[in-house]
Amino acid sequence: MLEQLKQEVLEANLDLPRHGLVTFTWGNASGIDRETGLVVIKPSGIDYNAMKAEDMVVVDRKGAVVEGKWKPSSDTATHLVLYEAFPGIGGIVHTHSPWATSWAQAGRPIPALGTTHADYFYGEIPCTRPMRDAEIAGAYEEETGRVIVETFAGREPDDIPGVLVHAHAPFVWGTAPATAVHHAVVLEEVAKMAYHTFQLRPEAQPMAAGLLDRHYLRKHGAGAYYGQTAT
Amino acid sequence: MLEQLKQEVLEANLDLPRHGLVTFTWGNASGIDRETGLVVIKPSGIDYNAMKAEDMVVVDRKGAVVEGKWKPSSDTATHLVLYEAFPGIGGIVHTHSPWATSWAQAGRPIPALGTTHADYFYGEIPCTRPMRDAEIAGAYEEETGRVIVETFAGREPDDIPGVLVHAHAPFVWGTAPATAVHHAVVLEEVAKMAYHTFQLRPEAQPMAAGLLDRHYLRKHGAGAYYGQTAT
Amino acid sequence: MLEQLKQEVLEANLDLPRHGLVTFTWGNASGIDRETGLVVIKPSGIDYNAMKAEDMVVVDRKGAVVEGKWKPSSDTATHLVLYEAFPGIGGIVHTHSPWATSWAQAGRPIPALGTTHADYFYGEIPCTRPMRDAEIAGAYEEETGRVIVETFAGREPDDIPGVLVHAHAPFVWGTAPATAVHHAVVLEEVAKMAYHTFQLRPEAQPMAAGLLDRHYLRKHGAGAYYGQTAT
Amino acid sequence: MLEQLKQEVLEANLDLPRHGLVTFTWGNASGIDRETGLVVIKPSGIDYNAMKAEDMVVVDRKGAVVEGKWKPSSDTATHLVLYEAFPGIGGIVHTHSPWATSWAQAGRPIPALGTTHADYFYGEIPCTRPMRDAEIAGAYEEETGRVIVETFAGREPDDIPGVLVHAHAPFVWGTAPATAVHHAVVLEEVAKMAYHTFQLRPEAQPMAAGLLDRHYLRKHGAGAYYGQTAT
Repeated sequence: MLEQLKQEVLEANLDLPRHGLVTFTWGNASGIDRETGLVVIKPSGIDYNAMKAEDMVVVDRKGAVVEGKWKPSSDTATHLVLYEAFPGIGGIVHTHSPWATSWAQAGRPIPALGTTHADYFYGEIPCTRPMRDAEIAGAYEEETGRVIVETFAGREPDDIPGVLVHAHAPFVWGTAPATAVHHAVVLEEVAKMAYHTFQLRPEAQPMAAGLLDRHYLRKHGAGAYYGQTAT
Repeated sequence: MLEQLKQEVLEANLDLPRHGLVTFTWGNASGIDRETGLVVIKPSGIDYNAMKAEDMVVVDRKGAVVEGKWKPSSDTATHLVLYEAFPGIGGIVHTHSPWATSWAQAGRPIPALGTTHADYFYGEIPCTRPMRDAEIAGAYEEETGRVIVETFAGREPDDIPGVLVHAHAPFVWGTAPATAVHHAVVLEEVAKMAYHTFQLRPEAQPMAAGLLDRHYLRKHGAGAYYGQTAT
Repeated sequence: MLEQLKQEVLEANLDLPRHGLVTFTWGNASGIDRETGLVVIKPSGIDYNAMKAEDMVVVDRKGAVVEGKWKPSSDTATHLVLYEAFPGIGGIVHTHSPWATSWAQAGRPIPALGTTHADYFYGEIPCTRPMRDAEIAGAYEEETGRVIVETFAGREPDDIPGVLVHAHAPFVWGTAPATAVHHAVVLEEVAKMAYHTFQLRPEAQPMAAGLLDRHYLRKHGAGAYYGQTAT
Repeated sequence: MLEQLKQEVLEANLDLPRHGLVTFTWGNASGIDRETGLVVIKPSGIDYNAMKAEDMVVVDRKGAVVEGKWKPSSDTATHLVLYEAFPGIGGIVHTHSPWATSWAQAGRPIPALGTTHADYFYGEIPCTRPMRDAEIAGAYEEETGRVIVETFAGREPDDIPGVLVHAHAPFVWGTAPATAVHHAVVLEEVAKMAYHTFQLRPEAQPMAAGLLDRHYLRKHGAGAYYGQTAT
């Protein structure tokens, strides 16, 4: 079942170490089949080098394994909460990529400082509040998803496809698993450049709203004119 | 038409990821045929891995496509303004290379701090002023070129072959596409070292004028004695 | 003798440059056979490229060579002290990996700032006090081991599998040579991210105790539920 | 003539980009035949990829070309001054390696902060004073050598095999070309770690003299016991 999606999810997972986003098994990618609501996700703690499409695990909305010989990623419950709350997304990636994780550990959102950011993220990349003791001690992975959703109150997840979880690491998404990987690469690059920008100018301010609009809308929405796809 | 130049422009574009200057499709290189005024440039949003010389787009001074099956780079108008204003240049490269872009995001010019800089850039690498709302909302890419030209009032583009566009990224040029790529690599290296120099000595001052002269003129102009070409 | 362990120790040593932890011969890995108390360790100053399992040196608890044609690593005495004091460990790695070494040179312990750290180190990674003149002038390598052991008074080496030696570099361990290498990679990554976290937020505080518990215990001990091994 | 030395000098030059010390042609290595006083050095501005042993240039003590079809490196005069002043050295390397060059641009010496430094450099790696206008305008490359020699008044070049030239870059040496390359790699690594150490502890002090002695003398001189060479 879902052979095409399994292949996409496998490729997304394999792309994480290829892009330098993942050390050892510190990451996972998933995809959702919106018709059935089934989610395909990486198995827990499996070496990236040996993974095949058939190792991917299929779970339902509640996280019950529908198909697969392995336990799903320990972060599965987080993915499920995001898929439910953000109906526009089709793939999710979680990594501990070092630049984004450093911002998460500092508990600082990444403001839009330049056009690289604006080409993909329509404004600040937020950082969640610290999780509460009861959340951590309870259904921790599910609560991680909930605190992300809470952070997006008043924000549009389709236009800001990623978040930093406080003292933890980023979750990133997109319309498909490959898009989520793409955004995870962008986030890491943007996090690195924002870090250096603040070292060069500690009082750096977010870019002008007009420039943010221009770059984001040049690539997204009805007026887009970047690339080969006609407007 | 312009088969030789197309090949040069293709090579220049392919060299950008090879030198680590470009993530995904975040860059473009072009070259101009000064006899006809025609410009050859990378197509917009095309994957570097699959590009061939025949994918390069030929445009005229106004940006109209003269030959090519793709849309030209969305930054074409910027290139055209620079070719018109700077008659000594034959190739242009635009990247979001991370060190130079961090300086651009900080809105800081890169002063000449050492001989590595002086060997290629005859003084400070300037940063443009922030673009105005009307410029951003109008013919944005063309206006980007104009603000670069404005920044070079009183400067010699042949001796300072690059600029940081405020809150955006660098544009770099040279007598040919390959030279522009070469200068883009130098800019990135110089930006990285200037960053670390300022961390080590926040009050660092520009290098002595005599040392700047010595190194720049050792490689450029009538008195040059570096390399194998006789003076 | 100990052919299996020699192979493991060889592999651990070869993995150090593969993971970017070692320049030239600046590192060594060892393993212990707890039944006999014999230790297998890298020979001193030998090029990693040419090493074979048969080049590994077998020493007894006192450091006397039991088998092997080379002199053992000059740091052998440090390894022996750690194996004696920490009965739960089976492999030790010493490197000058640059991020961890920078913390060691600064004489700062690395606090637990996020879940990457918490997944492997159950709290702060300590830094030893400076060694005393008499210790340095005496049996230096043995004293290095002793100051590490002193640093772990009140700490559990099985749960904090590494240390920074003041003005020197890290020693890292695990239940086997391969585990020690794994922890050395984690330490380097954690040291890098902690550095950037403090640059982004100089007053950064250790993560919440509950989050540290959750992540460490998710992977270690009776309640672990990460990976494929059933609880 | 000097075929063996030409091969060594070629290898040393080729090792510079292999170790990431050199971008484009920004570096050169040489070796001296102490019997004849002849120096073999890289040709000026030649691409590393195409160089062969026969491209190396042989010059005499005055810099006159004795054999070779190319012009020697533009830095030849600096090398010659160092060979004359430092009779114990057999090879010299000049690079613009980014970490060491950042210190040179900041005009700061690199203090001995840890054992990695102490294993190869017996104390602070000095930075020259800024060169004077007359020196820069005169026989610049020769004067560069002289200001290095001046910097080593009261220092032992055999025990501190490198220097930072103010606002320029490092020169490094050793008993042979390969040793000079080795030291250039060490200098870059040490410069990187010292940078991060000072960011972590701005008031960091040089390591204890006893620890510096112990590590340097463990590897050098009559009491050395590191590696396989018997004492």
